[in-house]
Amino acid sequence: MEQINNIQVVPCTSSNYLKPFRVHYSQNGTMKSWDFMRTHDSVSVLIFNTTLHCFILVKQFRPAVYMCEWEKSQAEETGSEVGEVGEVGEAAAPPEEKGDAENHPQLPPASAGVTYELCAGLVDKPHLSLEEIARQEVLEECGYDVPASKLRRITSYRSGVGVTGAKQTMFYAEVSDENRVGEGGGEPQEGELIEVVKVPLHEAMNFAYDENIPKTMGVIFSFIWFHSNMLSKYKISTNV
Amino acid sequence: MEQINNIQVVPCTSSNYLKPFRVHYSQNGTMKSWDFMRTHDSVSVLIFNTTLHCFILVKQFRPAVYMCEWEKSQAEETGSEVGEVGEVGEAAAPPEEKGDAENHPQLPPASAGVTYELCAGLVDKPHLSLEEIARQEVLEECGYDVPASKLRRITSYRSGVGVTGAKQTMFYAEVSDENRVGEGGGEPQEGELIEVVKVPLHEAMNFAYDENIPKTMGVIFSFIWFHSNMLSKYKISTNV
Repeated sequence: MEQINNIQVVPCTSSNYLKPFRVHYSQNGTMKSWDFMRTHDSVSVLIFNTTLHCFILVKQFRPAVYMCEWEKSQAEETGSEVGEVGEVGEAAAPPEEKGDAENHPQLPPASAGVTYELCAGLVDKPHLSLEEIARQEVLEECGYDVPASKLRRITSYRSGVGVTGAKQTMFYAEVSDENRVGEGGGEPQEGELIEVVKVPLHEAMNFAYDENIPKTMGVIFSFIWFHSNMLSKYKISTNV
Repeated sequence: MEQINNIQVVPCTSSNYLKPFRVHYSQNGTMKSWDFMRTHDSVSVLIFNTTLHCFILVKQFRPAVYMCEWEKSQAEETGSEVGEVGEVGEAAAPPEEKGDAENHPQLPPASAGVTYELCAGLVDKPHLSLEEIARQEVLEECGYDVPASKLRRITSYRSGVGVTGAKQTMFYAEVSDENRVGEGGGEPQEGELIEVVKVPLHEAMNFAYDENIPKTMGVIFSFIWFHSNMLSKYKISTNV
């Protein structure tokens, strides 16, 4: 269980990670402008362990998710609604506060910021193919060493259309216990603190639609994709 | 066809829409910090027209998507790779440039920024339920008037985990031609310029997995969801 405390929120006047730009343009003769941020494209990987018949997900504390839940809890306490703090698309200023997420009654528990996700990573190494980048993420985050050639491309889509416009490509990787060469867990020196989680095949659809389990759409979509495209293969072999 | 020109990109020093914050926190005793942005939660709606047996999507020019494609085309022209412009998570500065997307050979066509999406909107009206907000979006964007009570909740998930942490709830709405009370198209006074698009049921799965059709994951996921959960109902009634 994560221990999160000493939380302090400050305005971010200059960030190496979030750099807003403004584009002015003419659309069908009307001048418009739009604020956006540039981010790298990304890959995500649905990993299925054929030895254990389970999906391999990652689980981690996400500060942005936690802050969302924190703000909602603040709004409930003060009686104001979240929507009152800003206009459409405007960011609301979370109150500057220092607190202990475990002991302070005003703060949600650390678990409020933990999400289940597909293994994923940014496309930030120009000399590597998408498959190679996906392979590295599977190794670093989940500890399985599979050749890039065994990654099956599922599809691609825009992971954001309002703020970033970035593209994500999703892969499917079958692994076995023989491919397991490490613990995974990400790169601690880069601040990653990732827990590798197994979801048994027979529990996957309940997991996907259980709204009490915080997750990304990629988890839900990929589980359904597997159910539609791969299940027959494993139903036959296991008599599930 | 959209006409996009006179494009000019400038750094965005102050934005009403993108307001970065920084949170400092202690995770299991280690001090960390994270830059994030607060946005509203959102709703999205898979709309199925039972008269025409087609899905109703929206299609619009997305500046952030266009800028992504623009930067890729610039990187290809100069011989540098997109990934070279910044470190992990760092935003790269698009070059300040003024140009005509239709006639300037350096610029991708406007269609590079157009995406197909589910009808969707921000949860920014605190006195309304998620269903009521979804209902309003269906009316404003797509021109169908359906009671909120007829919206079926599919599921919810985090639409972002790195930067925003916001939650999205997805609904399913069956409409008929009798519910059609307007053209849709969004709120022009709010800068929305939305085209309503029909995707016939029998083409939906090809549409979902055709990577040449730019779209969000929500479109793909919801089409598969329909395929798994609703198709039998419409197969029986139409002998498709």
